[in-house]
Amino acid sequence: MIVRDVKIRVRYYETDCMGIVHHSNYVRYYEVARTEMLREFGTTYNEMEEYGVMLPVLEVQSNYISPAYDDDLLTVRVKLAKMPQVRMRFDYEIYRENGDLINTGAVTLAFMNSKTRHACRVPEYFVNLLKPYFD
Amino acid sequence: MIVRDVKIRVRYYETDCMGIVHHSNYVRYYEVARTEMLREFGTTYNEMEEYGVMLPVLEVQSNYISPAYDDDLLTVRVKLAKMPQVRMRFDYEIYRENGDLINTGAVTLAFMNSKTRHACRVPEYFVNLLKPYFD
Amino acid sequence: MIVRDVKIRVRYYETDCMGIVHHSNYVRYYEVARTEMLREFGTTYNEMEEYGVMLPVLEVQSNYISPAYDDDLLTVRVKLAKMPQVRMRFDYEIYRENGDLINTGAVTLAFMNSKTRHACRVPEYFVNLLKPYFD
Amino acid sequence: MIVRDVKIRVRYYETDCMGIVHHSNYVRYYEVARTEMLREFGTTYNEMEEYGVMLPVLEVQSNYISPAYDDDLLTVRVKLAKMPQVRMRFDYEIYRENGDLINTGAVTLAFMNSKTRHACRVPEYFVNLLKPYFD
Repeated sequence: MIVRDVKIRVRYYETDCMGIVHHSNYVRYYEVARTEMLREFGTTYNEMEEYGVMLPVLEVQSNYISPAYDDDLLTVRVKLAKMPQVRMRFDYEIYRENGDLINTGAVTLAFMNSKTRHACRVPEYFVNLLKPYFD
Repeated sequence: MIVRDVKIRVRYYETDCMGIVHHSNYVRYYEVARTEMLREFGTTYNEMEEYGVMLPVLEVQSNYISPAYDDDLLTVRVKLAKMPQVRMRFDYEIYRENGDLINTGAVTLAFMNSKTRHACRVPEYFVNLLKPYFD
Repeated sequence: MIVRDVKIRVRYYETDCMGIVHHSNYVRYYEVARTEMLREFGTTYNEMEEYGVMLPVLEVQSNYISPAYDDDLLTVRVKLAKMPQVRMRFDYEIYRENGDLINTGAVTLAFMNSKTRHACRVPEYFVNLLKPYFD
Repeated sequence: MIVRDVKIRVRYYETDCMGIVHHSNYVRYYEVARTEMLREFGTTYNEMEEYGVMLPVLEVQSNYISPAYDDDLLTVRVKLAKMPQVRMRFDYEIYRENGDLINTGAVTLAFMNSKTRHACRVPEYFVNLLKPYFD
């Protein structure tokens, strides 16, 4: 299992007139966090696209425990529990600066051949990047 | 059970560089659709707030079957399966203009006292609006 | 000069914790309105891209007179003052339902060859669509 | 004059189906940058609201020179040219990592009494924070 913590500062435009971060933005925070995790593995969405692979989202799940507010410095903990094969599932926990858990979630992505736009297996170059973390 | 169909035209800025609607926007479409359902019952988020009630989101679930594209005219089918008590759950199906089902989902909201910011029961005025649909 | 009025309902997620529509969303309303104007001329962004032309934005200008609120039904008045050549400028006025003018703005777009990604002249098919309005 | 550089990493959802950052997001980057500048002065939007002052936007102007792409690490240079009185104007330049200037802009904010929702003068506590920079 790989776990990483990514800091995200809440932006003003992400709040709504209830005075809290609009729930849709957590789905975007998840994306930012897994992008940073990929960067740490040594790759990016761009590079995967150069390898002819895109990563469309198959499923999103999010549980809201407590609100976040403008300018909060959140910690998004992202976990990749197992080596992906045809899908890749990330689990999330979001914490406020005081340590309170405010959200949990999960996102499952597919590997898709960017030319045929059909599902494909995880690219080998990506498996090689992940291997050291799963041995 | 109450079911309504709401038309939503995809906006250019809702697409991403994969050439499809970014997955986070479906969560926003869900909100637009339930807002229109509430309007049909004869109320709005604003009016509920005048009654001292807010509707924070507790849970979001979304399954992506097939992509949507810029300028697509989507039909968001929203269902309220049962009379809410302390929570209100909406189920969703999104269709492309050709009838293809491209997404399913569910959103659960809480009723919250807007002063105390604590959970509360469904307001009576709202129950009265819904009653005719559940008899 | 061509003038069209496009109705846009404010969405909850477009508001911010000041309780009003976040200023960045007006730039998005402008886009929705010119998209509807193009549709009335008989074309779409998608069709222009089939003709090998993209429409990147060169300049945005926006003046905020009075706020908009959640669920407001806005009228976005979009004007195309003259036949475009290498640029296309749209002017905007946004009105609340009571007739108050709350925002004015302007957006200038370029015509760009989508393969070379260089500026190009307005496509002839598009000129033909606009001609009846400028005679 | 006060000048600060703020790094902003482009997020995937900020791109559109033209393959570039949607123009509306620059207006949001401006906001992120001035928020960081305020933080450096020793204050935040939240704190200003505790002092009873809100900062609605009066005017936005943006010129797009060259596109930004997914995952670009942008530098947003924000300038406050003079001590604000009833308005506060920020000027912007956005650079790609290779040093190319891709966007310029300006945003003017008003000081507003958050209770009366009327314009007001710059709060004294804020003047005191800025003074050292303008001497």
